[in-house]
Amino acid sequence: MNTADTCVSDDLQQRLVEMRRDFHRYPESGWTEFRTASIVVEKLTGMGYEISYGSEVLAQDSVMGAPTAEEIERAAARAIEAGADEEIVANMEGGLTGVVATLDTGRDGPTVAFRFDMDANDIGEAQDDDHRPYREGFASEHDGIMHACGHDAHTAMGLGLAEVLAGCQDELRGKLKLIFQPAEEGVRGAKAMADAGVVDDVDYLIGLHVGLKCGPGEMIAGARDFLATSKANVTFTGVPAHAGVEPESGRNALLAAANAAINLHAISRHSDGATRINVGTLNAGSGRNVIPAQARMILETRGADTTLNEFMWERAEEVLQGCALTNGVDLEVDMVGAAVGGESDARLAEEISRIAADMTEISDVQKEAAFGGSEDYTYFMERVQEMGGRASFIVLGTELAAGHHQSYFDIDEEVMTTGVKLLGALAGKLTSME
Amino acid sequence: MNTADTCVSDDLQQRLVEMRRDFHRYPESGWTEFRTASIVVEKLTGMGYEISYGSEVLAQDSVMGAPTAEEIERAAARAIEAGADEEIVANMEGGLTGVVATLDTGRDGPTVAFRFDMDANDIGEAQDDDHRPYREGFASEHDGIMHACGHDAHTAMGLGLAEVLAGCQDELRGKLKLIFQPAEEGVRGAKAMADAGVVDDVDYLIGLHVGLKCGPGEMIAGARDFLATSKANVTFTGVPAHAGVEPESGRNALLAAANAAINLHAISRHSDGATRINVGTLNAGSGRNVIPAQARMILETRGADTTLNEFMWERAEEVLQGCALTNGVDLEVDMVGAAVGGESDARLAEEISRIAADMTEISDVQKEAAFGGSEDYTYFMERVQEMGGRASFIVLGTELAAGHHQSYFDIDEEVMTTGVKLLGALAGKLTSME
Amino acid sequence: MNTADTCVSDDLQQRLVEMRRDFHRYPESGWTEFRTASIVVEKLTGMGYEISYGSEVLAQDSVMGAPTAEEIERAAARAIEAGADEEIVANMEGGLTGVVATLDTGRDGPTVAFRFDMDANDIGEAQDDDHRPYREGFASEHDGIMHACGHDAHTAMGLGLAEVLAGCQDELRGKLKLIFQPAEEGVRGAKAMADAGVVDDVDYLIGLHVGLKCGPGEMIAGARDFLATSKANVTFTGVPAHAGVEPESGRNALLAAANAAINLHAISRHSDGATRINVGTLNAGSGRNVIPAQARMILETRGADTTLNEFMWERAEEVLQGCALTNGVDLEVDMVGAAVGGESDARLAEEISRIAADMTEISDVQKEAAFGGSEDYTYFMERVQEMGGRASFIVLGTELAAGHHQSYFDIDEEVMTTGVKLLGALAGKLTSME
Amino acid sequence: MNTADTCVSDDLQQRLVEMRRDFHRYPESGWTEFRTASIVVEKLTGMGYEISYGSEVLAQDSVMGAPTAEEIERAAARAIEAGADEEIVANMEGGLTGVVATLDTGRDGPTVAFRFDMDANDIGEAQDDDHRPYREGFASEHDGIMHACGHDAHTAMGLGLAEVLAGCQDELRGKLKLIFQPAEEGVRGAKAMADAGVVDDVDYLIGLHVGLKCGPGEMIAGARDFLATSKANVTFTGVPAHAGVEPESGRNALLAAANAAINLHAISRHSDGATRINVGTLNAGSGRNVIPAQARMILETRGADTTLNEFMWERAEEVLQGCALTNGVDLEVDMVGAAVGGESDARLAEEISRIAADMTEISDVQKEAAFGGSEDYTYFMERVQEMGGRASFIVLGTELAAGHHQSYFDIDEEVMTTGVKLLGALAGKLTSME
Repeated sequence: MNTADTCVSDDLQQRLVEMRRDFHRYPESGWTEFRTASIVVEKLTGMGYEISYGSEVLAQDSVMGAPTAEEIERAAARAIEAGADEEIVANMEGGLTGVVATLDTGRDGPTVAFRFDMDANDIGEAQDDDHRPYREGFASEHDGIMHACGHDAHTAMGLGLAEVLAGCQDELRGKLKLIFQPAEEGVRGAKAMADAGVVDDVDYLIGLHVGLKCGPGEMIAGARDFLATSKANVTFTGVPAHAGVEPESGRNALLAAANAAINLHAISRHSDGATRINVGTLNAGSGRNVIPAQARMILETRGADTTLNEFMWERAEEVLQGCALTNGVDLEVDMVGAAVGGESDARLAEEISRIAADMTEISDVQKEAAFGGSEDYTYFMERVQEMGGRASFIVLGTELAAGHHQSYFDIDEEVMTTGVKLLGALAGKLTSME
Repeated sequence: MNTADTCVSDDLQQRLVEMRRDFHRYPESGWTEFRTASIVVEKLTGMGYEISYGSEVLAQDSVMGAPTAEEIERAAARAIEAGADEEIVANMEGGLTGVVATLDTGRDGPTVAFRFDMDANDIGEAQDDDHRPYREGFASEHDGIMHACGHDAHTAMGLGLAEVLAGCQDELRGKLKLIFQPAEEGVRGAKAMADAGVVDDVDYLIGLHVGLKCGPGEMIAGARDFLATSKANVTFTGVPAHAGVEPESGRNALLAAANAAINLHAISRHSDGATRINVGTLNAGSGRNVIPAQARMILETRGADTTLNEFMWERAEEVLQGCALTNGVDLEVDMVGAAVGGESDARLAEEISRIAADMTEISDVQKEAAFGGSEDYTYFMERVQEMGGRASFIVLGTELAAGHHQSYFDIDEEVMTTGVKLLGALAGKLTSME
Repeated sequence: MNTADTCVSDDLQQRLVEMRRDFHRYPESGWTEFRTASIVVEKLTGMGYEISYGSEVLAQDSVMGAPTAEEIERAAARAIEAGADEEIVANMEGGLTGVVATLDTGRDGPTVAFRFDMDANDIGEAQDDDHRPYREGFASEHDGIMHACGHDAHTAMGLGLAEVLAGCQDELRGKLKLIFQPAEEGVRGAKAMADAGVVDDVDYLIGLHVGLKCGPGEMIAGARDFLATSKANVTFTGVPAHAGVEPESGRNALLAAANAAINLHAISRHSDGATRINVGTLNAGSGRNVIPAQARMILETRGADTTLNEFMWERAEEVLQGCALTNGVDLEVDMVGAAVGGESDARLAEEISRIAADMTEISDVQKEAAFGGSEDYTYFMERVQEMGGRASFIVLGTELAAGHHQSYFDIDEEVMTTGVKLLGALAGKLTSME
Repeated sequence: MNTADTCVSDDLQQRLVEMRRDFHRYPESGWTEFRTASIVVEKLTGMGYEISYGSEVLAQDSVMGAPTAEEIERAAARAIEAGADEEIVANMEGGLTGVVATLDTGRDGPTVAFRFDMDANDIGEAQDDDHRPYREGFASEHDGIMHACGHDAHTAMGLGLAEVLAGCQDELRGKLKLIFQPAEEGVRGAKAMADAGVVDDVDYLIGLHVGLKCGPGEMIAGARDFLATSKANVTFTGVPAHAGVEPESGRNALLAAANAAINLHAISRHSDGATRINVGTLNAGSGRNVIPAQARMILETRGADTTLNEFMWERAEEVLQGCALTNGVDLEVDMVGAAVGGESDARLAEEISRIAADMTEISDVQKEAAFGGSEDYTYFMERVQEMGGRASFIVLGTELAAGHHQSYFDIDEEVMTTGVKLLGALAGKLTSME
């Protein structure tokens, strides 16, 4: 492709808006994106892509932070009711809602992959006329769930890009891969896809997020300084006893958790850079005069890079085990989310910057800038870089009605076409690179 | 009265049963005994007693562990719906549901008081045919509330005794006082009545509990070794902050509570006797990545006597204040229940024993025995003893269908007539003592 | 023997005084009683007793709280210099300074044993004329060591009793055993002798202590309520690091000890009776800016009986291990002392009381009374009672110049003759029992 | 002065070596630099400087980390014995061993000040022939004290510079101030001099340290990123009690310190940059069975800048107070050292660089570089910058025989002449600036 506009049909924006609004209306939390993924499967099949999904593209053992089986089942039924294909949903049993679509041009050339995330947030959407989705009738139909981070737009852009690529495949070389990931919120889903090997053959990997700290016309070509993080739910289980009659028979889970909370915060600072620890909640005990037999904590560690977070998490595990032993209670640690650190590839970011520089919709390109938060895209990035490929993460600015994860969140939908054009041009450029 | 049977009409048992079953059917939690107290006021007024109730007999500042204003209002409305007198309920505003009824014989003689408790438990009653109250149609009409400790019987006995005493007042001397106390469960109500001075003029005070560790025919004339206890709800309030972005701006209430829990348990043992401490529940925090700004704990201390519990509670207060300061958070301590220690008067127990020995319904009398738990009757007992009077607490055995505070709890209703006869005879004996 | 006076020669008191003052002048701490034990061995050999000592009567693995090898060697050299027999000292290598002397009458009868302790205290003796030992020239020659508990008198009494028994062995039956124990202070020595089996064949066992809470003429025949106790020295070993430059490389032993101290004190109270815990000292760290790599604590648990102390000690071990794990440091626990609980045998105490009642020197005999402290005699007592024998512990009152373990401690030496007469009479009585 | 060599006499190096070796032989710890300061006073007086010292130049209330009065007195006596002037020593009563010498040229111009530190380290010097000071006979005469950081050279350089400046004062303008500071080790002495106002009139301030991370020929003209730090000794005082007999009577200082140690380490990380906390030592308690009545901790906080350290120290104070209250003990915090953060002035560093660039002895000049540790010079720097002046801190490289604060530490003495030339040239340049 010579320009970013090639192969982009005139009505792309309209279709992107329709798809985005449909996803917005039926938001699905992580590991329950049955309807969303079902639509992705159907549309991409129709365009001639080779599709893999469910357990083919997600390593079950690496799934983190999944809802209960009942919640998953309920969500699957709801998806079918809202139009999802029953058979496709059945193939995503257990919430394995990831999809990978491949377009092989049959011509020599590198494999270029794009990653999109599909999940919504556990946030109730604003229900008033100040909020466009409500005013225009595409606000969430699902109580307490809302696309408040833009993943609805990401998914729509993925489908739009698929259409563009399919439409001009004669001009492309190598292989194109579109990766639709579940459960990015809480950094839960990427690891299971990366561990399933879906990017092992990828030479160039691109991820993209709309909004964040970029305003309209602004773009970061290669985000760096992703924070590594580990998120866990912890349960201490002791033995209850009447606190007045025979306190000695109890094993106090509340005290184990209390010790753990304090000692987690007392983990040493690290001279290599910033670390974080937080015990966000602690809930323990059942009654005033009962030795507490159960305590639950939800916590997270962070590090400015993977090694720093590993330091924190390894120490945290010691603390948890030690405090369980101190109080003679059992410990269960459920890893519910994780992301590694990472840096976009400088050369790839340079390519992206060059293409963006040619686009009128983008006026202000930063080749690199700190991401400053966590994204589980880093698992894909790490894998690609380990295998010798190049990966970058783009932040594409847009006007936001309210901040991310807020009930009035909304985007300027034009950003979707801009993004598809950029990614399409990138696909053309990268597949033709040596 | 020469014998315990004098003045007891043949149909007393039938009326006791009716009253008890009515109370059982409409159980009311502590500080919401509007219907129960309303009936007490009406019946005693009808018998010619002089009545004081509401704020006349309860010191507002000494009220512990009251429900919220909304809960109290809801309960008052429910009581009126179930037949309580609207004006009487209005006079018990704020849940001040205690009643004191006085019968002045006009003849010289000591003042003899009897205390009855009226509140039910926050327990759902068994709903099956194995449970007599359900089978015979007088099970609780109020979800999650049940007379599972026998206070329904106590209240009925108080009314039965009132009838007996009124019926034979010509044979009595001095003054008779019947005290109907709210909120004994959680040891919340007695202090407010004692602090209002309702026993300040009492020469002899008698309390009674059915069941407990006494089987049919068994009785303890003077319980001793009441455990002193303090029960508190504690809230630490800090400052929330994003745990990743600016943890230093937060003030961590969870850590304050964790420190407090551990250090409360580390309060020194006491060489004078048994002490107890328990943090029964700890609930803190709002989200994984938010510095917890609030933490709540419910806790209790106990001591084999008042001094030992005071030692525990004073140390506990230091710990709570110290841990709030350590973590830079605010502390609120809400005293929700308390009982002092206490011992029944030996000479009075001796009198009680002698009368009981004459009753065929009672076969096995222990003059004194350890109570082994807490009862806020001790506040009345302490006040009477401080003023130079004598006080005792009777445990009157009965067959129990299930243990106290269990959903199948039920008593052999015959115990009520036995109790009324015993108390009636005691009234006769004590009012005629020098 | 018919009376307690039989076989007691007129000059016994004088010899007791000489021996006691000699021991007083050369006090030896636990596990270094080389001179004392050497004299015991020599004297008893001379009287015709069969002697076992050193590793014959002490199980090396059960030795607790021994000094360092250097300290032991230094003490052995000092003992030899002060007149101890070189060969005997050599046979007590490693501080195994216990002695057992047996007198077999050759006649059928039970085995009756008496236990005496020999060690001094790590206390500097008063050096002024108000203090008789100083005034009369038998104050301690060893800086910082003093017989401040009366074990010098006990040892002398053991030798006096040996002389009495040997002198009247024709009137005795069965076997007589005299047990001289090292290291009673800190409850360190008895277990190693009991574990070596020295009382396994004993039918009646008698222990005795002068003073304590008995004044002149008073006696307890059978002490009860010995507190069980465990005494340990604990070392946490971590990894040092510069606290500014690379704190993450350290493993903080100070924090492990701090956690342990708090959590040890937070071990649950026990409903069966009194327990105690104390971390007496904590010393950790090397410099202001070094992550502390070492921390030492000395601690003790106690219980009103063996089971209660076992509860405390088992929980304490969990806490220590848990806190080591929490902070990633190594743990070493050195058991330096222990005593079990115990009760004197009622029937044996009855016999002792009867004999004492006949003695003019003793005016006030309590058959039983609480000991209220710890004594490792309980290990012997427990073993004898387990094997079906009877054991009792006598407290024999005397006038004290100052309390036990004080630098002005001194006794009325007459108590020694009284004690020897009592034990002699007891030997006669018990060996003739069926 | 036109060049750095003007006014430098040929034998300067020889005299610098003599002075440095004399100071090296008689090292004096912080606040006991009596002999050193006495020599400084005498020599500078001889050169015509106006001298202030003792309480004239040190604010008593700002003195931190002084030795005990006995230690100070002993050191003063030792100094006199080693040749210090008795009257001068008397004028430095209480260890106020700072000296300020002023040379007023009488010509208009800025005030330029140079700061030198004089104290030695509490380190025993190597006593073998591999160590030049020992081999050549100028090793420390004072056990356990050694110039192991180069302050002996700094003081000698200060005297050398004084000579140079006095020699060419006709070519200078404005005022020259030479500040000789006690107790830099432990960051204890500068604040008291700054608080006494000794730099309040200073337009340009220069400090210098030899060695550190600069090798021979290397120099940093303006050090930045000084770590702010607070160093404190903490004492908790409780109430002792027998841990078995009446533990409730005790107030446990050990537990207060244990709580403090853990919670100090649990102070929140700060998003603005690096912080540190270390409890270096904790020593508590007196005996196994005594509730510990005293606990001492030595600790330090650090921050990448003043604000970060203030955050740490303020939180630390809360923790200390809170833990004292939690355990009902008294708290005493003794501030024994402190330094603020700081940055050298860029323009001044530029001037310094230019002069250094002209010197053959210096081959590699960095205009600015991180200091990476703490220096209480920052108090002077902060004061000068607050008053509108400019300040810089120079690191001048040299060959080291062993690292700073090690017993084999030694420098290449040539560095002293290089330094004096540099500072002399700087004095010429700066005093002639507008």
